[in-house]
Amino acid sequence: MNINEQRILHSWATNAKPWTRVVRDQLIESRALVTDKAIVEAVVELEPRTFLDIGCGEGWLCRELFCRGFDGWGVDGITELIESARCLGDIRFVVSSYSDLPLQKFGSINQFDCFICNFSLLGECALGEIAQAGKSLLADKGKIIIQTLHPLIACDDSAYSDGWRETSWQGIGLESFDPTPWYFRTIESWIREFHLKNYRLLKLIEPCHPKSKKPVSILFIFERLS
Amino acid sequence: MNINEQRILHSWATNAKPWTRVVRDQLIESRALVTDKAIVEAVVELEPRTFLDIGCGEGWLCRELFCRGFDGWGVDGITELIESARCLGDIRFVVSSYSDLPLQKFGSINQFDCFICNFSLLGECALGEIAQAGKSLLADKGKIIIQTLHPLIACDDSAYSDGWRETSWQGIGLESFDPTPWYFRTIESWIREFHLKNYRLLKLIEPCHPKSKKPVSILFIFERLS
Repeated sequence: MNINEQRILHSWATNAKPWTRVVRDQLIESRALVTDKAIVEAVVELEPRTFLDIGCGEGWLCRELFCRGFDGWGVDGITELIESARCLGDIRFVVSSYSDLPLQKFGSINQFDCFICNFSLLGECALGEIAQAGKSLLADKGKIIIQTLHPLIACDDSAYSDGWRETSWQGIGLESFDPTPWYFRTIESWIREFHLKNYRLLKLIEPCHPKSKKPVSILFIFERLS
Repeated sequence: MNINEQRILHSWATNAKPWTRVVRDQLIESRALVTDKAIVEAVVELEPRTFLDIGCGEGWLCRELFCRGFDGWGVDGITELIESARCLGDIRFVVSSYSDLPLQKFGSINQFDCFICNFSLLGECALGEIAQAGKSLLADKGKIIIQTLHPLIACDDSAYSDGWRETSWQGIGLESFDPTPWYFRTIESWIREFHLKNYRLLKLIEPCHPKSKKPVSILFIFERLS
């Protein structure tokens, strides 16, 4: 694991408690107005019998989907976040690195109809680890739903090309955060990498902010090929 | 045909002569530096035995591909542009609207390995007409290669949503142009519409400007499903 991948895990362990408060208090406008709804709608439209929410954080999306009758599990690499998730009562949350996913037990579920990665593929290796996990943990024609910052919006003044970036974490509400690096990918790169790993793009969605009318995020829905 | 689709044809007939000069003198920087190379490379990588260059204009791309040993035809709705193309000697250019493509004769070629649409799907109907033409004129697993302005760059300050836009044609070199409307599509829309018409996205390419390092265009390569 390179130094940036280590820094991501370290930062998120540090940020777990303020992050949990920020998410539960709905303090991030783009999530409250656009992206929470976008990921829920994308999952609901697929009608998966079972889902695995990878990088589930404090678990809001799992709870939202449990309420709507979908069975599934949340998994996160950060112990403190999974503790936050389990605190609210449901036991379907487990700590795991993305590379160790195939080794985990998820109750009676052996294969999932879909993986969900909601703003949770942050490092360079995550994409490959998820694609690999899908070979054993996704059902035939299983889907991977990814939501991430829209690359052209997130690119800012930098070159539009793959590479590590530093976040400029703003404080949110009264909370402050440990800055964490993340790996920027172009739209071309997201699609190319999954296609090379024997998935195909089913759908691409660009949710727009109701005021600016510009996309704030992008969703990719990939299907595992046999 | 609605008024905007009519205006597109009218403008291009008016612009045919100055456009031919501008293209042949390589006066458009983004074409000279980025997008000409991008479309040629995309076609060459597919190694099609036969191609149909739809909206071929004065024919530079056909000639480039003929030189490289690919057999094919150029087609354009504007008589004046096809006359410009034929002037240089090759007869493999034909006038046709996009909707009439299935009625045309292309020498001994009955089906093509690929369609090429290089900045030539300008109106709202063009996408559907091309997709429909592919049902009869594309071989099984035939490809459609589209290059267009990158939607997020072309969007400017407008809302990021499908709709008709007015061009702000700048004069190029000493030439001036009749302004023409065009139909803006989001990336989501390009992919959704072809997927609905039984094509699938094989590849997406975002060629960047060597100086700004930002994408200037986007290429979609779709494959016809059986």
